[in-house]
Amino acid sequence: MKNYIIHDPWHIIENQFRAEHNEFSESIFSIGNGRMGQRGNFEESFSGKTMQGSYLAGVYYPDKTRVGWWKNGYPEYFAKVLNAVQWIGLDIRIDGMLLDLAQCEISGFERRLDMKAGVLYRTFIAEMPTGAVVEVTAKRMYHLFQSDTASLQYTLRVLNSDAEVSIRSYLNGDVVNRDSNYDERFWVPIAEDIQDDLVLVTETKKTQFRVETHLRNVFYVRGTVQASGTKSKEQCYVSEELRAHLNVGESIRLEKYVAIVSSLHHPLDKLTEVAQSSLAQIASKSYTELVQLQTDAWARIWEESDIQIEGDIAAQQAIRFNIFQLNQTYTGEDARLNIGPKGFTGEKYGGVTYWDTEAYCLPFYLATQAPRVARNLLLYRYQHLEKAIENAGKLGFDKGAALYPMVTINGEECHNEWEITFEEIHRNGAIAYAIYNYIRYTDDTAYLATHGLEVLIGISRFWAQRVNWSEQKQQYVMLGVTGPNEYENNVNNNWYTNKIAVWCLRYTLDAITQQQAQQEDCLYALLSRLALKTEECAKWQHIIDNMYLPEDSDRGVFLQQDGFLDKELIPVVELPAEVRPLNQHWSWDRILRSCYIKQADVLQGLYFFEHEFDEDTIRRNYDFYEPLTVHESSLSPCVHAIIAAKLGKEDKAYEFYLRTARLDLDDYNNDTEDGLHITSMAGTWLAIVEGFAGMRVRDGKLHFQTFIPKNWQSYAFHVQYRGTKLYIKVSQDDFEIKNLSDTEISIIFNEEQLLIEPEWKS
Amino acid sequence: MKNYIIHDPWHIIENQFRAEHNEFSESIFSIGNGRMGQRGNFEESFSGKTMQGSYLAGVYYPDKTRVGWWKNGYPEYFAKVLNAVQWIGLDIRIDGMLLDLAQCEISGFERRLDMKAGVLYRTFIAEMPTGAVVEVTAKRMYHLFQSDTASLQYTLRVLNSDAEVSIRSYLNGDVVNRDSNYDERFWVPIAEDIQDDLVLVTETKKTQFRVETHLRNVFYVRGTVQASGTKSKEQCYVSEELRAHLNVGESIRLEKYVAIVSSLHHPLDKLTEVAQSSLAQIASKSYTELVQLQTDAWARIWEESDIQIEGDIAAQQAIRFNIFQLNQTYTGEDARLNIGPKGFTGEKYGGVTYWDTEAYCLPFYLATQAPRVARNLLLYRYQHLEKAIENAGKLGFDKGAALYPMVTINGEECHNEWEITFEEIHRNGAIAYAIYNYIRYTDDTAYLATHGLEVLIGISRFWAQRVNWSEQKQQYVMLGVTGPNEYENNVNNNWYTNKIAVWCLRYTLDAITQQQAQQEDCLYALLSRLALKTEECAKWQHIIDNMYLPEDSDRGVFLQQDGFLDKELIPVVELPAEVRPLNQHWSWDRILRSCYIKQADVLQGLYFFEHEFDEDTIRRNYDFYEPLTVHESSLSPCVHAIIAAKLGKEDKAYEFYLRTARLDLDDYNNDTEDGLHITSMAGTWLAIVEGFAGMRVRDGKLHFQTFIPKNWQSYAFHVQYRGTKLYIKVSQDDFEIKNLSDTEISIIFNEEQLLIEPEWKS
Repeated sequence: MKNYIIHDPWHIIENQFRAEHNEFSESIFSIGNGRMGQRGNFEESFSGKTMQGSYLAGVYYPDKTRVGWWKNGYPEYFAKVLNAVQWIGLDIRIDGMLLDLAQCEISGFERRLDMKAGVLYRTFIAEMPTGAVVEVTAKRMYHLFQSDTASLQYTLRVLNSDAEVSIRSYLNGDVVNRDSNYDERFWVPIAEDIQDDLVLVTETKKTQFRVETHLRNVFYVRGTVQASGTKSKEQCYVSEELRAHLNVGESIRLEKYVAIVSSLHHPLDKLTEVAQSSLAQIASKSYTELVQLQTDAWARIWEESDIQIEGDIAAQQAIRFNIFQLNQTYTGEDARLNIGPKGFTGEKYGGVTYWDTEAYCLPFYLATQAPRVARNLLLYRYQHLEKAIENAGKLGFDKGAALYPMVTINGEECHNEWEITFEEIHRNGAIAYAIYNYIRYTDDTAYLATHGLEVLIGISRFWAQRVNWSEQKQQYVMLGVTGPNEYENNVNNNWYTNKIAVWCLRYTLDAITQQQAQQEDCLYALLSRLALKTEECAKWQHIIDNMYLPEDSDRGVFLQQDGFLDKELIPVVELPAEVRPLNQHWSWDRILRSCYIKQADVLQGLYFFEHEFDEDTIRRNYDFYEPLTVHESSLSPCVHAIIAAKLGKEDKAYEFYLRTARLDLDDYNNDTEDGLHITSMAGTWLAIVEGFAGMRVRDGKLHFQTFIPKNWQSYAFHVQYRGTKLYIKVSQDDFEIKNLSDTEISIIFNEEQLLIEPEWKS
Repeated sequence: MKNYIIHDPWHIIENQFRAEHNEFSESIFSIGNGRMGQRGNFEESFSGKTMQGSYLAGVYYPDKTRVGWWKNGYPEYFAKVLNAVQWIGLDIRIDGMLLDLAQCEISGFERRLDMKAGVLYRTFIAEMPTGAVVEVTAKRMYHLFQSDTASLQYTLRVLNSDAEVSIRSYLNGDVVNRDSNYDERFWVPIAEDIQDDLVLVTETKKTQFRVETHLRNVFYVRGTVQASGTKSKEQCYVSEELRAHLNVGESIRLEKYVAIVSSLHHPLDKLTEVAQSSLAQIASKSYTELVQLQTDAWARIWEESDIQIEGDIAAQQAIRFNIFQLNQTYTGEDARLNIGPKGFTGEKYGGVTYWDTEAYCLPFYLATQAPRVARNLLLYRYQHLEKAIENAGKLGFDKGAALYPMVTINGEECHNEWEITFEEIHRNGAIAYAIYNYIRYTDDTAYLATHGLEVLIGISRFWAQRVNWSEQKQQYVMLGVTGPNEYENNVNNNWYTNKIAVWCLRYTLDAITQQQAQQEDCLYALLSRLALKTEECAKWQHIIDNMYLPEDSDRGVFLQQDGFLDKELIPVVELPAEVRPLNQHWSWDRILRSCYIKQADVLQGLYFFEHEFDEDTIRRNYDFYEPLTVHESSLSPCVHAIIAAKLGKEDKAYEFYLRTARLDLDDYNNDTEDGLHITSMAGTWLAIVEGFAGMRVRDGKLHFQTFIPKNWQSYAFHVQYRGTKLYIKVSQDDFEIKNLSDTEISIIFNEEQLLIEPEWKS
């Protein structure tokens, strides 16, 4: 836990230099624009604790797998979105001595992230070991309005004496990943050019992503723009240096404009051209104009996705921080990109895709962006279908069975822990569920015919082969799986996995029936291409009708897995504080045989398939599993918040909300220094919109069932739904609904059917 | 499979140079003397496929753990018995060109291991690329009569023309392990000396084992001994070179005597002295005398441990090969040493100790060596008790609970796969069983008071903490274990583990009761020191009385674990050949959820605790599990052979015997190139003595229940038992028993009680 971030509705503020927590702060002050992003590293040299990180979406390296004991079927590599060219770097010398915050007395330090505008600010006063005192103010942006570019402005004033100041502004392409498996270098130098703008070209090994970076420096001394500085280059490094003699109170300023373009997004032979024109677009503007463009772009996002909370600044700041980070990470323009669990804020999890996207992030983008954004997340998996079939083939499945990877960037599996790689197969269900969820929300049933059904059939084929008939039980069983609760491994009949498998089969059959009615020709062409025959569908139906789903009839609860009731069931509250988190204190076997749950997967299933269960059933299961859950997955509390809200356990719902909302800002799990928990941030949004406001889609209608935490005055948000846009505000004794679109919409609000007329016509 | 080893009763013979299989042959032709050993590498340079390996028992390095995903509780290192000084090396030049079998035409090649004498022979004729033809004959020994020393004799004759021949004989200390986790070098050079004998001193990093090697070369040209050659040294390398002009038909001979002494066995300040005197002992003798001393020493071993088989040379060769290797690996002089699964024949498994020793090897040493040898194997674990308590502590156990490591050299756990490291805890039972087995065989009950009981109490405390009470079952259960069948991981209520846990508790209580009668004072001192109170024993009794042991009453079989009958039970014979071995063709999850068994642990339990079960029970279980067993552990077939023999399934027993006996000679599992399966060789011995001859100890008496495979004329062996020594010969229609000691012994032979009088009095 840390709690030094100042509470403020629109800003994230750190008002003191804490060298020991710098890596935590670097994560918090990360910025990005969907195309690229960066940790909150300092511009100037820093010899203290730091994790340097600048990332380009989709630019990855297949890092050779490292493993203790190889198991047949492990993948050859783990794909990593790489630490890329360091463009912010400045070497600053005062009277010949390097400015390094670790070597100076620092006062007046402030880092401030303006979330409304998307600008990162920093100011400080440094007393150099020589006695010279300088004041620095810096701002930095990844432009949302021109996503190949970024910029910074850096101003240094001499406060107590005259000084010789030099600034060397550079691009450094010789960067490494801290988590490299074999201390490999991933980048190959291609070219450096300092004729005009500074140009650095590098390329990734193996994957051969070419990245071209163009930098223009504009130096001002005493407010007057200067001619170029002294340029120089070496391998993987280009720089420009300006020296100036400043009198007391005088300042030097640098504006640094960069375009960073990659062959992922532009043709190789156009890279230079694109970089030049992108750079020209931004460098032609004043820095004030750039800030305004950025503010305008962010305003458009906030208009759709902001949540306002009155009466609780910490909660307000937190939800905006979560929404801000989600929008920095993924903008939905490119179906080849996805949402890494840490976005552009760290190396952990390699910046690649997990089931988090489908299970947690999709609803946020569905409700706050045009449907094409969520659709692109679906297309990402559609494009990987062939690889998913290959992946299943490696594990012995055939005839078109598809198993999506646990971790991937290009459709190939990267993960190499057998209990996860091979067994955490519920992920396949989440990918099917996302199709269902998208169509339920958008009514875009055409997606089924063009893409969705093919994915569903591949997934269903996997489940049908993965189960086996138990002679003993005279039912189908599913042996040897790991559920979302990763504190159980290789269990038999994980309720959640069995449940979602059956659901997938049924939804696929339903989708076929539906398509039969709507798109018969198109359907038959598909079924014929996939060689899906009636007998295969009949087999699926047999599984649906005869699947074993473990439960305990005495308690009236579903059983997490076979044998769960053999455990000693001691509630989490009875655990001594010093053993928490368990995964840092207990050996793995002890966790596994304990009753403690990382994230409650029975509850995850009840959340996904809520409409199939009565409230008493949900309550019994919640009351049974909640006390055993340690929430050591960042994805856990949000689901508990939503279910607690549904069950009217308002205090609990609020408690879980807080736990997810300020997870990173307060460093709840002591791991934010590795990067932010981006995908779980979507869970925070869910906790308010689906939890407190109880938003659901049922039978094609939006439902709300609201409550408001006691200490809030109100909360309000927008949702987009099938071409309409609603503003919902919930106060302690009142509510407000506006229809901001031009068509009326009928919704169910606190069990009442309301017809909401457009507030204005376009 | 390979089958080029020539069948011969006393020799292992390869009569053709097969460069492609050289690493396999290097394993087969390994030699050693318990203190040290070596793969069958060539003396001369060889640019083909080879794995260089010379090992010194107990001289290890803690190689930093390599892991994909760290789990709390993993050990910091894997201890490895290191590849050590290469002492056999010769650089041979003919007219300036290096002799390298990979670069010559080779004819008349023969490698021959004389198991009777313990001498490795090699001869070949090489035609050099220059046209020169030379004939080489070499012999090599690790002296059993002076275990710090080894020697070789190398003779080269020029066959077709005059030639300038040079031989550089060297010691090379700059050796690496192929399996080093981080490509580290493990040896530090300390000193080189060439004043008199060649001396090389090296030391292991971290563990600081000092190893001093003294080499004396004696060169003969045309039969006449020569003055010293030209000596030289560099870091980690000393050499002596002799050049000679040979006419057609003339020869040069080198005798190379080494002493290799380590600080593990001798005081650091005496190393030089010990090496000098050891070297002097052997170098003072002619090579013929040395071979005679070696032959005499091996004769003493063969007298105790040989098994003679008439009518089946392949079987005869195989059993002798197995016995030979066991005696090369472990001589029982030093309780700090143990039996690595590959002995001195390869790097795999790091030369460290597994439960193989207690479960498979102990009976061999009990029956063929003085009791102190088996006792030293027990003392090895006794010395590690404190570490085993620490190890259990790391996994959350306390109050003196001891968990012996899965893999160790110094008592600390080295293994880092959670499903094995933390969960394959049945090993603890084998360590207790070995104490029982030793006392049952030797009647050395005094061992209990001095050492055994303390170990048993630590182990029992572990089991008592490891089980938990299941409210559901109203019995004790044991969750999350891996049994000996490693094709199941993290299962609940593995029958074997539950069974041996209960057995340990009962045996410990019995031992306490017995000690109460015999050594009351001594016992109370121990119990007081260990703070073992009546309540704790009562708790053990409660577990004994209420332990859950899964079984299927319909089939009348014990269940390998909970849920086993949910699997699809398809016999191994229905598997297509191309998927075998499964672990090279199936992904891990597929193996885990299949019914296929690596080694049948229910049967292992029935073997250990045979006296508790009637024959029908054993038969039902054998008939159920045998068809599902793939025997992909080398430790599997021997137990099946013993049980099949007991059940009168003679063909099956013989089939399993063959599978274990020639496992390495015929490279049954295609992995002998990694080294020999030393510990499973004890299983071959068991298959004959406990299988075919049905030897058991019951109620303090030796029992035999014999059968003989159809195609054998006879088999015969010696066993030592409580001061007597028996010779047993079983023929097709007859048997012969001799008492070679001076006291009579009463045995049960084929259900008949026989009093065997001494054949002669001493």
